[in-house]
Amino acid sequence: MSYQLPEKLRNLVPYEPLSGEYKVRLDANESFISLPPAIRAELGDELARIYFRRYPDPNCTKLCEKFGEFFQVPSNLVVAGNGSDELIGLLVSSFTEYGDAMLVVEPDFSMYGFYAQMCGLKVVSLDKRMNGLVLNGDALVEAAKESNAKLVILSNPCNPTSLTVSREEIIAIVQRLNDCLVVIDEAYMDFSKGSVMDLVEKYDNLVVLKTFSKAFGMAAIRLGFAISNLTVVNALKAVKSPYNVNTMTQVAGCVLLGHPDYLKECIYIIKKSRDDLYEKLLLLKEKKTQIEEVINTTANFVYVKVYKAQDVFEQLKEKGIAIRFMGDYLRITTGDSQENGLLLEALFKILK
Amino acid sequence: MSYQLPEKLRNLVPYEPLSGEYKVRLDANESFISLPPAIRAELGDELARIYFRRYPDPNCTKLCEKFGEFFQVPSNLVVAGNGSDELIGLLVSSFTEYGDAMLVVEPDFSMYGFYAQMCGLKVVSLDKRMNGLVLNGDALVEAAKESNAKLVILSNPCNPTSLTVSREEIIAIVQRLNDCLVVIDEAYMDFSKGSVMDLVEKYDNLVVLKTFSKAFGMAAIRLGFAISNLTVVNALKAVKSPYNVNTMTQVAGCVLLGHPDYLKECIYIIKKSRDDLYEKLLLLKEKKTQIEEVINTTANFVYVKVYKAQDVFEQLKEKGIAIRFMGDYLRITTGDSQENGLLLEALFKILK
Repeated sequence: MSYQLPEKLRNLVPYEPLSGEYKVRLDANESFISLPPAIRAELGDELARIYFRRYPDPNCTKLCEKFGEFFQVPSNLVVAGNGSDELIGLLVSSFTEYGDAMLVVEPDFSMYGFYAQMCGLKVVSLDKRMNGLVLNGDALVEAAKESNAKLVILSNPCNPTSLTVSREEIIAIVQRLNDCLVVIDEAYMDFSKGSVMDLVEKYDNLVVLKTFSKAFGMAAIRLGFAISNLTVVNALKAVKSPYNVNTMTQVAGCVLLGHPDYLKECIYIIKKSRDDLYEKLLLLKEKKTQIEEVINTTANFVYVKVYKAQDVFEQLKEKGIAIRFMGDYLRITTGDSQENGLLLEALFKILK
Repeated sequence: MSYQLPEKLRNLVPYEPLSGEYKVRLDANESFISLPPAIRAELGDELARIYFRRYPDPNCTKLCEKFGEFFQVPSNLVVAGNGSDELIGLLVSSFTEYGDAMLVVEPDFSMYGFYAQMCGLKVVSLDKRMNGLVLNGDALVEAAKESNAKLVILSNPCNPTSLTVSREEIIAIVQRLNDCLVVIDEAYMDFSKGSVMDLVEKYDNLVVLKTFSKAFGMAAIRLGFAISNLTVVNALKAVKSPYNVNTMTQVAGCVLLGHPDYLKECIYIIKKSRDDLYEKLLLLKEKKTQIEEVINTTANFVYVKVYKAQDVFEQLKEKGIAIRFMGDYLRITTGDSQENGLLLEALFKILK
């Protein structure tokens, strides 16, 4: 008998990134702000000092300290990861046992369910589409209890809906599901309000995730963080690969966090651009009946319900504009004013 | 009821790196060769060109091409990882089903078993200590068949024994275990001979792992590779996090692989230093009965059986020299001539 892949791998499709060249990339919720020359120069100086032959600091000590200062959390409650992706993978695979139920909501970041399936969890999904894309906290708690879920994970603000669940509602969920780990992925929280990061010490079962890929504009370096109570943090440190965050990324994270005013300015600029894009898409909706709904965004992208969305997506692609096609919806990252202008112009021509 | 960590996490101890300052670090099998100024400058130039706000190339296209050129393998059979650690974790967790048996040998790199336990595999271990640390291929095949192992993983040359299993013997194992995935971690193969990387297309069930952390002296960047047939490679690409290798690491890997002569020179210099260290430890053994055995190394470290090894380890630490304590043995990474000199001098004083 020859070697066969295990069942769970046989029908997996390798991730295919958007290929080809696009003049406007608004598909990956990246930041449109390029690193300023002064910070880039400082980063260059710091990178030049690295002992490349040595393994990285396994605890990302300095980086976690700087993160703690910026976000006002104790640094010993912070774990850095190779993007929040790595931390999601670790939480899903290690903080559950085989066959456990894990609750996700729908729509949400698709990787949560992907990691769960890989390690044999039973993925239970709560559909928000029946409720106008809005999360019903009571329904979530009920579904989690009913399925005896050991882990609940959701993004807040939600990718892709762009909606934020209120801090009060998240707290209620955490409190009511007190024997279940609740992971709140706050990748987009810098663009909204209602973070629960300050509450990680108050609860046994709360983990908050953060990323450098969105508001901080550093998707290239792959840097994410998990913040939780000491018990969960220590367990997470124990299960991660010892040297999970490379030295260059640690250095880059420290350099960026050394410029809190710049980071806050980035958030301000992106929010302004996102508000502008939202307003203009609303105006476009008045002229184009093909746009069915423009969700009032609290993230750095706008979620738009469009009739024949795939056609629109394909036509934008032909014009060199990349956005994200998601069933009945299009997810459009906000770009700078020129990029948003090109997108809106193209949409105006394409839509009926 | 309040939140409880799952059973498997309760007794895990967070990885504790060697803390404190040491004048000589020979504990982590790192390279002692610092990146030359010219290559460092070139790397600086390349890093300065990165679009930090964009996600990395998910397929590491250019990097895998350069790797393929250097090692003479087709680039579509290469997957890059965040160190080989990430790839080991993925192979162990995704190319098995819960409850499957996985075979490791003992002693070997301890993380293999760690990852396996985390995802509920039954770890079967073949002890080489009964056989003078030498792997018995027949015994391995027998143990794998008997336990119905779905995965066999071993380092070759072995960390920590420093011994190499011959290419012929590895081939025999791969052929005889044709329904089991055989992962050969060739992290140290640059210092030895007998790689099976050129055979990955010939077998359904062979994966070879490589790293930039040892011979290439780039532990800081976390870069590893898996090489296998297209079926396994595509499955591995499908299960990995889409953006697992950050852009800086991809760039650094490309820069290094653009200097094949330098890389080959590194290997030559490290092997010379390691041979020298081995010879001198052999000489020391003649004078100091406390040294029971010096294994004839094929890696960048020497594995030495020492009476009261822990005492020796602690005394070296007090003198500012870090090596690795492993039960009855000490594992000593080769350093430059000065570092090796300091180590040998200290050992001469400490040993009886």
